Order: sequence, then C-alpha cells, then structure tokens
Amino acid sequence: MTIDTRHAIEQIGRGADEVLKLDELEKRLELGRPLRIKAGFDPTAPDLHLGHTVLLNKMRQFQDLGHQVIFLIGDFTGMIGDPTGKNVTRKPLTRDDVAANAKTYADQVYKVLDRERTELRFNSEWFDQMNAAGMIRLAARHTVARMLERDDFAKRYASQQPIAIHEFLYPLVQGWDSVALKADVELGGTDQKFNLLMGRALQEAEGQAPQIVLTMPLLEGLDGVNKMSKSLGNYIGIDEPAIDIVTKTMKIGDELMWRWFELLSFESSLSDIECMKREVSSGQRNPRDIKLILARELAARFSSANDAERAIEGWHAAVRGEGDTSQIPLTVLHVERAGVRLPALLTQAGLSSSNSEANRKLKERAVRIDGATVEDAAQVFLPGFEGLLQIGKRNFSRVRLEASPDQA
Amino acid sequence: MTIDTRHAIEQIGRGADEVLKLDELEKRLELGRPLRIKAGFDPTAPDLHLGHTVLLNKMRQFQDLGHQVIFLIGDFTGMIGDPTGKNVTRKPLTRDDVAANAKTYADQVYKVLDRERTELRFNSEWFDQMNAAGMIRLAARHTVARMLERDDFAKRYASQQPIAIHEFLYPLVQGWDSVALKADVELGGTDQKFNLLMGRALQEAEGQAPQIVLTMPLLEGLDGVNKMSKSLGNYIGIDEPAIDIVTKTMKIGDELMWRWFELLSFESSLSDIECMKREVSSGQRNPRDIKLILARELAARFSSANDAERAIEGWHAAVRGEGDTSQIPLTVLHVERAGVRLPALLTQAGLSSSNSEANRKLKERAVRIDGATVEDAAQVFLPGFEGLLQIGKRNFSRVRLEASPDQA
Repeated sequence: MTIDTRHAIEQIGRGADEVLKLDELEKRLELGRPLRIKAGFDPTAPDLHLGHTVLLNKMRQFQDLGHQVIFLIGDFTGMIGDPTGKNVTRKPLTRDDVAANAKTYADQVYKVLDRERTELRFNSEWFDQMNAAGMIRLAARHTVARMLERDDFAKRYASQQPIAIHEFLYPLVQGWDSVALKADVELGGTDQKFNLLMGRALQEAEGQAPQIVLTMPLLEGLDGVNKMSKSLGNYIGIDEPAIDIVTKTMKIGDELMWRWFELLSFESSLSDIECMKREVSSGQRNPRDIKLILARELAARFSSANDAERAIEGWHAAVRGEGDTSQIPLTVLHVERAGVRLPALLTQAGLSSSNSEANRKLKERAVRIDGATVEDAAQVFLPGFEGLLQIGKRNFSRVRLEASPDQA
Repeated sequence: MTIDTRHAIEQIGRGADEVLKLDELEKRLELGRPLRIKAGFDPTAPDLHLGHTVLLNKMRQFQDLGHQVIFLIGDFTGMIGDPTGKNVTRKPLTRDDVAANAKTYADQVYKVLDRERTELRFNSEWFDQMNAAGMIRLAARHTVARMLERDDFAKRYASQQPIAIHEFLYPLVQGWDSVALKADVELGGTDQKFNLLMGRALQEAEGQAPQIVLTMPLLEGLDGVNKMSKSLGNYIGIDEPAIDIVTKTMKIGDELMWRWFELLSFESSLSDIECMKREVSSGQRNPRDIKLILARELAARFSSANDAERAIEGWHAAVRGEGDTSQIPLTVLHVERAGVRLPALLTQAGLSSSNSEANRKLKERAVRIDGATVEDAAQVFLPGFEGLLQIGKRNFSRVRLEASPDQA
C-alpha cells in the first residue's frame, strides 16, 4: 500500500461504521483516478441538522482526497408519492417541488461540500426513461426470500404488518442508481446497508466493478442518547445562528463531545483527539475548554469565523455574568398578567426542575439575574421583563416575558 | 330470477368448478346487455388439444347466450421472456412471433368460437404504454403476505426454492388486464383462481364492478387419470384427422366418457347425459354406442360432419374386420431388413404387451390381419408389408413396415 493510499484509508475510515470491502477500496484508490462517490438523499424538503452532516463530512473528506462526489436526489420515487394511497400526507412531488427542494439542499450542503467536486443528479433522469417491462426485468434480479432478510421487512413480515409489493422494488431502484452512475463507492447510514449492498449486486450483474459500501453511524443528539432528530428536539440545525450552535454544543456531556469530535470535526485529527482525551483525563485541561474548540469550529462552519468568535465571547460573558450577553438567544415565556414569582420563573425557563429546587438554589445564592445574585423568592416578574437568568455558571437563559393570550 | 337468467346460469354452470360469486353473476346477467367475457392465453406457439377446448367451449356457451368474448393474448410478458436469464429456452418473443402465434390460435380456436362475437386483444396494447412508475403503482396494490398465500408461492417459499420478485408482478399484470378490458367475467382453469381474483381486487380499487370469476376443471387425458397434456402423450389434438379422433375417443374408459360428455359436448344436454347414464346402467344401451355419439360430435367439430361419418364407418369396418379400413391411421414401424416375426410385430405395434402375450392371443385365434384370422407365430413380415393388424375387435392398428436406417 502506498503512503497516499494509507493516508486516504485512514481519512475515509474515520468514524465509519463499516467498509465493505476494505481491500477493494484499497485497490480502487490505487487506480489513481478520481473515484465516483455516491450518496443518495430524500427529495422531500430538507432542513438539515448536524446529524445529516456526518455523511456530508465524509463526502467532503473524499473530495479533499481528490474524488468526485455525486449528490443524488431520489426524486423518481418522490414523484410517485405513496402509491398505496394510505399516507395522504405523502403527496407526490411535482417537478417544481423537486427543483425547489434541490435548491434548498444546495443552499445548505455547500456549507460542507466543495461545490466544484459535487455532481448534483436526479434519478428520474434514468427512471423516467424506463418502461414497465424494464421494471419487471429489474424485479427479476432479486428473490423474495432475500428481500425478506432485510431487517425491517423481516420484522414486519413476522409481526404480520403489511408490506406492499412495491416496497420490494425501492431497494432495487436505489441499487440501479449505482449502475446508472457507475458509482465506485456508496455512502449511507448504517440503516441503509441492505440497500447499498443491492447496488453491489446489480453492478456486478451488469459487468461493473461492484461499488464499495461505506456506512456511517447515526449521530447522537444533544441528550447523548437518542439519534439526533427534529422530532425529538435534540438537534442543532445547520442554519441556526452561531450563538445557538455554541450554547447548545456547550451543554452536551463530555462523552458525547468526543463522539462529536470524531464525526464532526475536520480541524482535529484522530491523534489530536486522543491527545486532548489524555489531557482531560490527567486533569491538565478542563473539558469545557475542549468543548469550546468544537463549538467554535461548528459555529464557524455554519456561520462564519467572525460570528463564531462573537458567539464564544457572548457565551463567556453569560457564564461570567458580565460583558455583552446580547447574543444569547432570547426565549419568550408567556406568563399571567399578574406576573410570576421567581422560583416559578426559573422552572418555566427550564433552569430548575421544580420550584422547590429553585428555592434551594436561591438559598444557596446560586441564582443570578443579569449577573447580579438574587435571593428574594417572593419577587414577582411582570410581562415586559427581559433579562438573563442564571443558575450556577453554565445554566442560563435569556428570557422575555409576555402576557398569556386571554383565554376564552 | 327470470327464466332466461335461470337458463343462462344453468349453461354457464355446466362443468364449472367454481363461480365467484353466483349472485353477482345473476345480477350481471339481468342487466340485459352483452357481458364482456375475458379469457387469457399464453402467447407462445399454440397447438391445442381437447383439454384446451374445455375453456373454449365455455366461451362459446357465453357467445351462444349473446355475450362478447375477449380472447386475450398475454404477449406483454411473453415479449419480456425470462428476465432472470436462467431459462435460456424461454426466449423473448418478437412482435412477429406474437402475430404468427395469434394467427395459429385463430386457425384453431374458431373451430369452437364464434368469430363474430370474439374480440382478439393483446395486453401489450396497454402495458407498452405503462412506464416504470406505473408498474410501481401497480405493485403497491398488493402485499407480500397476500401474494405468498398463493399455493405455488407458499410451497416454494416454504421449501426455500427461489421466487424472483417479478413473479409477484405477473398476477398483478393479469389482474390489470381485467381493468383495461372492463371484464364482466373472467374464465380460467382452477389453477388460475388466485390470478383471477386479483382482477376482482384491482377492478374494485379502480371503481369498476368486480368481475365474476369462473374456473373450469382440467380435463383428464386418454388414460383417465392424468390431466391431458402433450408431454404425457394422452391427448387428442384438435387438428388431428377425424379417424384419429374417433379411434382415440373409442378407447377411453366409460367413466371418463361421462366426464368428457359434460365438458366437451354441446349436443348432449346435462339431462340427455343423465338419461344415457340410466340407459347404460340398466343395460338398455351399450356404452360403446354412447361413446360413438361423443366421438362423432368431436370428429365433426374439428373436421366436418362428412369426415366424422366416414371415420365412424372406418372404425366399424376395422372392428368388424370387413369393409373400407383405409381411413384407419397408418403407423410406420421400422424393422430389420431380415424382417420381423408376427409376435414381435404385434408387440411393436402396441397391440400386445409382450411376445408371450402375442403368442397366447395367436393360440386363442384372436389375431387377424386384414380381417383374416392368423395362427402362424413363425410367419416373418418384411419391410414393405402394409396391413391392418388386430387382436380382438377394438384393438387394432394399420401399419407399414420400413427397413431401419443402417446403423453406423
């Protein structure tokens, strides 16, 4: 293996769940030509969060190694919608929808990807040309039994939940995309492995060298437990302002921090990360300082270096209770016209889990408002109040109170 | 129910295995318009035998009741061939093949069907227009579990024999044909029931009244046991000469005769058949005479009334051992240049099961050649000999001997 190949394999392997097959990847890299790296994306309106960038980062790493990335939008099946007619919310997309969604993708993904080395493609290009006979021929490429081995199909079949027959065609559609694109490598989440392998099989049957399959793990969200998702609310959107990215990142646990470093950082190499880990465990460095490195990198990537610096300053100011805290995101809380007492306010702001905990913190002199320690639990805050509430150093929230809308 | 409907239901029900559903058929008949009666046929080169005519007869009965028959050739999938590529002998048909096969069908089926009330259709008409997305939508109409309930799929799945996914699409293709044709009734063999029901489901989903499904049993062949088929050799082809139809029919067992009457005769009504059965069981009539009625009808249908009469005469002549036997089909037997002795000849002609049985028959004076009793077991027959060999009355064969080709 050449040094270049060894270096490339290291980069590519970073954070990967599985590479199938590593020896094929090595040989393919040694061909010395730019490889065609495919990754497929849903054609529905995208609103990306850090979880999605795990894959985008890997695509970017390939680009930095000189390879050609294919950002494939699976619009063909999107334009079919839900053919069973059961899911009325899954309306078929029009061509205009697809174009609009592609633009939204582009606005977001080029924060990570190198536009010059990205080929944007739509699988309707080849599937709109395919007729019913072609689809039958494609369906003939695989057996029912093999398809029922796919995890989710196996579970649904065993528990007698219906599987519509066209669901068996979708993995074949995805696999055929690899044939059409002559992909060398396909990237996807671990949950996509079955479909990625389909591409290998179909390419082989078509006389192409089968693509190498590389799966990336799903990123844990802010809670450190569940995978990052919109619906769980444990996410950082890539369009969020720098200060939100910083404050949210600074709240994650230390364990998750290392995981995020591995999957999200370009600036810290794996050996940098190892080094920082040692420094933290020996007590030489504070994990907070390490977290700030990550927060700064992420904020800079999705905003700008300047915004990132100002956000970090804002965060410091809030933590110290002095300086410019105007960048801390403002949360609007609805309270009664008669106002709310301080312990209830702290609880409503999510800084304490109960009024009695808030009372205890007040007694401990751990509560500050705009940097000044407060103790009076009886103090009432009226609609119109705006200020930085803080319990301890890092647990803070900037709030504005508004009167609850009248109830009928 | 009107008298007309009751009469129609009786005709339609004759010999049928199942009608789904009878009350729907009754209502549909009472609409008073010609119903659209669909039956699908394989697009591969047809060479029909009596077994196939069971379905054709049913179609004809519908025509005689004033309905419109659709003779559907499933050429769409035939032109795909075997998409798995495993069955190299199942080559995709070309359009010319399909046209040639359709002509061959026409030459044969109008011996039974009324050309005026037959609509010849090809399912490529609508499937050539369907694109891949349409096929996916069609596939969405059914679930994997429901498809695996089909007998042959269930068995293959259970015994781990592969089922290619496109095989799940074919019943849907057949069902969609009913939608395209707005079929009121679909006819098929009992083995087709699952596919015929598919048509009902798809029509219902498309807002059409679901077709009535009528299945016909498979006809037992000359042996009275196995279903009639080319490969078993137990068939009567509908292009065979009248004399072959007569001699073969006259050899079938009495039990099978009644079955053939029910499924193949137009001239004998069910009550006629009941009547004949009673006459035979009371000893009033000889089953041979009843069989002659059937043989005459079949020979007349597939040849002409004249040919049928001459064939019956020829058969009688052979049985009596006198009169014109020239119509008895001639079988060419290859023998050695030195000739063959009589017992071996009788065995080779299929009239005795062994030379010792032939010797016994000779001793019993049961063997005749051209009507004259022979006894000499040592007699040698040389190439060039031609004559009517007979053991008993009805066991006969007209043969000509030719020298075996030289062996290298």
